[in-house]
Amino acid sequence: MESVFQNETIKEILAKYRRIWAINHAQSVLGWDMEVNMPKEGILERSVAQGELSVLGQEFLLKPDFVELVEKAKGLELNEYERGVVRVLDRSIRISKAFPPEFLREMSEVTSQATKAWEEAKKSDDYSKFEPWLDRIIDLAKRAAEYLGYENEPYDALLDLFEEGLTTRDVEKMFDKLEKELKPLLEKIMEEGKVPQSHPLEKERYEQAQMERVNRWILEKFGFPLGVRSRLDVSAHPFTTEFGIRDVRITTRYEGYDFRMTVLSTVHEFGHALYELQQDERFMFTPIAGGVSLGIHESQSRFWENIIGRSREFAGLIYPTLRENLPFMANYTPEDVYLYFNMVRPDFIRTEADVVTYNFHILLRFKLERMMLNEGVKAKDLPELWNDEMENLLGIRPKTYREGILQDIHWAHGTIGYFPTYSIGTLLSAQLYYHMKRDLDVEGLVGEGNFGPIKEWLRERIHRWGSIYPPKELLRRAIGEELDPEYFIRWVRERYL
Amino acid sequence: MESVFQNETIKEILAKYRRIWAINHAQSVLGWDMEVNMPKEGILERSVAQGELSVLGQEFLLKPDFVELVEKAKGLELNEYERGVVRVLDRSIRISKAFPPEFLREMSEVTSQATKAWEEAKKSDDYSKFEPWLDRIIDLAKRAAEYLGYENEPYDALLDLFEEGLTTRDVEKMFDKLEKELKPLLEKIMEEGKVPQSHPLEKERYEQAQMERVNRWILEKFGFPLGVRSRLDVSAHPFTTEFGIRDVRITTRYEGYDFRMTVLSTVHEFGHALYELQQDERFMFTPIAGGVSLGIHESQSRFWENIIGRSREFAGLIYPTLRENLPFMANYTPEDVYLYFNMVRPDFIRTEADVVTYNFHILLRFKLERMMLNEGVKAKDLPELWNDEMENLLGIRPKTYREGILQDIHWAHGTIGYFPTYSIGTLLSAQLYYHMKRDLDVEGLVGEGNFGPIKEWLRERIHRWGSIYPPKELLRRAIGEELDPEYFIRWVRERYL
Repeated sequence: MESVFQNETIKEILAKYRRIWAINHAQSVLGWDMEVNMPKEGILERSVAQGELSVLGQEFLLKPDFVELVEKAKGLELNEYERGVVRVLDRSIRISKAFPPEFLREMSEVTSQATKAWEEAKKSDDYSKFEPWLDRIIDLAKRAAEYLGYENEPYDALLDLFEEGLTTRDVEKMFDKLEKELKPLLEKIMEEGKVPQSHPLEKERYEQAQMERVNRWILEKFGFPLGVRSRLDVSAHPFTTEFGIRDVRITTRYEGYDFRMTVLSTVHEFGHALYELQQDERFMFTPIAGGVSLGIHESQSRFWENIIGRSREFAGLIYPTLRENLPFMANYTPEDVYLYFNMVRPDFIRTEADVVTYNFHILLRFKLERMMLNEGVKAKDLPELWNDEMENLLGIRPKTYREGILQDIHWAHGTIGYFPTYSIGTLLSAQLYYHMKRDLDVEGLVGEGNFGPIKEWLRERIHRWGSIYPPKELLRRAIGEELDPEYFIRWVRERYL
Repeated sequence: MESVFQNETIKEILAKYRRIWAINHAQSVLGWDMEVNMPKEGILERSVAQGELSVLGQEFLLKPDFVELVEKAKGLELNEYERGVVRVLDRSIRISKAFPPEFLREMSEVTSQATKAWEEAKKSDDYSKFEPWLDRIIDLAKRAAEYLGYENEPYDALLDLFEEGLTTRDVEKMFDKLEKELKPLLEKIMEEGKVPQSHPLEKERYEQAQMERVNRWILEKFGFPLGVRSRLDVSAHPFTTEFGIRDVRITTRYEGYDFRMTVLSTVHEFGHALYELQQDERFMFTPIAGGVSLGIHESQSRFWENIIGRSREFAGLIYPTLRENLPFMANYTPEDVYLYFNMVRPDFIRTEADVVTYNFHILLRFKLERMMLNEGVKAKDLPELWNDEMENLLGIRPKTYREGILQDIHWAHGTIGYFPTYSIGTLLSAQLYYHMKRDLDVEGLVGEGNFGPIKEWLRERIHRWGSIYPPKELLRRAIGEELDPEYFIRWVRERYL
């Protein structure tokens, strides 16, 4: 395989980058091991090791000779791969340099204590335990926005941190349309009752070994290279991690009931993993290997979860395997599985939300985050604002903090500006689907269990480009459009009405 | 817990050492994952990451300010912990500095190609494929000895590399006695037939899940903190690895027959792990945490394997569990298990050798290695020398290279001078046993499954001291003696005659 990197300065940059790559690789392995294998008292030594490696990685990134090379490269004639390298590194350096060390230390201390406070607050449903910490986190987020800089409003800086190039204006436009069109749609779905609000399959119990066989069968059907370039393991919160292009691992969990959750989370993580596995191998060891952003990544996982995993054809495809492994399936039809996977029911908890109501959960958080950053809203006002907005959007009002403002760990972790990427992924997955339909009989292929053409389409349009192009440009090249919520609304209409 | 480190220079050294510690930690996790979990095509990226981290660790160790601090500390008034830190670091620095980079590169290239050649040679039983590589490795070993320096003969330098302070003279003395006394003993054992040469249990087949339950039961009896500070996994070659004091993992393997192998290898690795788990926690993140040498480490694993695991009382202790999990055990008694675990039979393969003949396998390799280093023996002469010596020591002559000189991977890896540590461990385990017997009713405790006092004895005498003292001094402090093969000979006599 011929290298795509010809420029001498770029080659020099990439040679130096190798040790940063190696540190990242090690960090990923340490993180994966911590979630999947680590005996519980290993935590102290593991945390120290991770802290040291993370400082080390930063140091190499900000070494003057490295930064100088990247600066120099910005002025050179480069091919698109090389320009990608410079863009990604320049962005990393800019973000790393933005925060003074004492700010990072404060952030790390506050968020680690805030996380503990949040856990206790959630356990005892006592918001007052978390409230002062949330105020400190809002304050830190504001300062972070100032350090990073922004054009229009502070929240822009945080959005861009998680999704390169994303602005508040983009998100607002997206949600304005969604709120206007999706709200009446949801009401209609509930009225018409084409999909149920609950299903007896939710209550059926299974053994882990049974569903593990089903998940492995599905992954094999997808052509997931288990044991060759990937693994499926178990962790408390399902996730995907890539140690490189040739070792991408996913996890799932087994609740013991409501098997939809383990199936769809496995399918979701597969979508993330496929993006990493289908990278151009010539990008190995470079900063342009790997998915370009959280939003694009989520579009891949949601594509497999919602478009493929919740289709009638997929229910039909996996039904025999479900039947073989779950004795209770004898009482249900493939159509039951389809309906069960597609229940729509306004509820309080985001992570358990269905495809239609999910975006309202994100919209709510977006509105609140924006108020925190731009409008001086304080932690004490947030529970009321949360509940009012919940009632406005989904017609239900939380009775506890636990099913309201205390449900997510994100703010305790200091991640403000992250939630919108979830909706971007959801909307984009539908948009990609309608573009794919122009080229492929998607449903027919799923029914046959023939996923090759679907994977190839995604590889060619999205995966192989790694992080060469920023998200918006990648999209323009892939489908000739920018993000458009219309596709998702159409998908909901076609699917649920 | 109060720190044992008071001196400011030492504190400064340890603060800087943290990142070396973190890199070592990461290297261990990467290595463990490679053997236990890694999907097979992950190898390319993993190797690059390991190579980069290993260079990085070396760089930090040899940074002028770090080396200077260690040099400075050598002249200070220090407590024994602090002196230990200086001794361990000074030794590491000295060894790291000894080899020029181009030598290390050559070593790494030659050994990686030699390993491939050895694999092919072994597979096709064709020594000529390995012979030229072995000559290059002998040459590299000689040069390594010159770089390291030595007092009497080149082989001294290599022995010291693997076992601090060990000399050819020490090993020679040990083996002279062994050869003289153990040879007639072995003949007598074979004549008297108190233990068998083979046993029908060797042929009995089992399912992995059955023996996994047995191994876990044994480890729980030993008080191994599975899931808390340790794990038991499966790998092609059983090993122990420590990521720190609180995360020490062992592996075993399941051949599917001859269950003695999986039991005794689990017990063996437990012995290694216990040494790491019982370190003084105040040594965490420092270079004096962890076993001091290969020989002392092997004394711990052999103690559990040979002294505990092959005792009549242990056979009695585990018999009910074996019976519960292995249907065929209904046809055998606890005495059968004991005899099966204690078979003595001269055979060709070191890794399958019994307790008595094992040391002859090492003696043979010691003789050959010494000839390579000191007497100019070439690869072409070695097979004949091997076979002659095998006939001399065990009365059997290999008919293939595979059961002779091609059996071990060690030389292909460039590790010459390593084998003697295996015998040191074996001999020392018996020596520790007789000292332990003065304080404890070892057999009684094993029979009761009460391992606490045995573990505590080992902790107090050996484990808690980490690497503070060099091996010989540790031994003098632990039992007031130096290594003496007499104990092992006595143990063989008492056990097998």
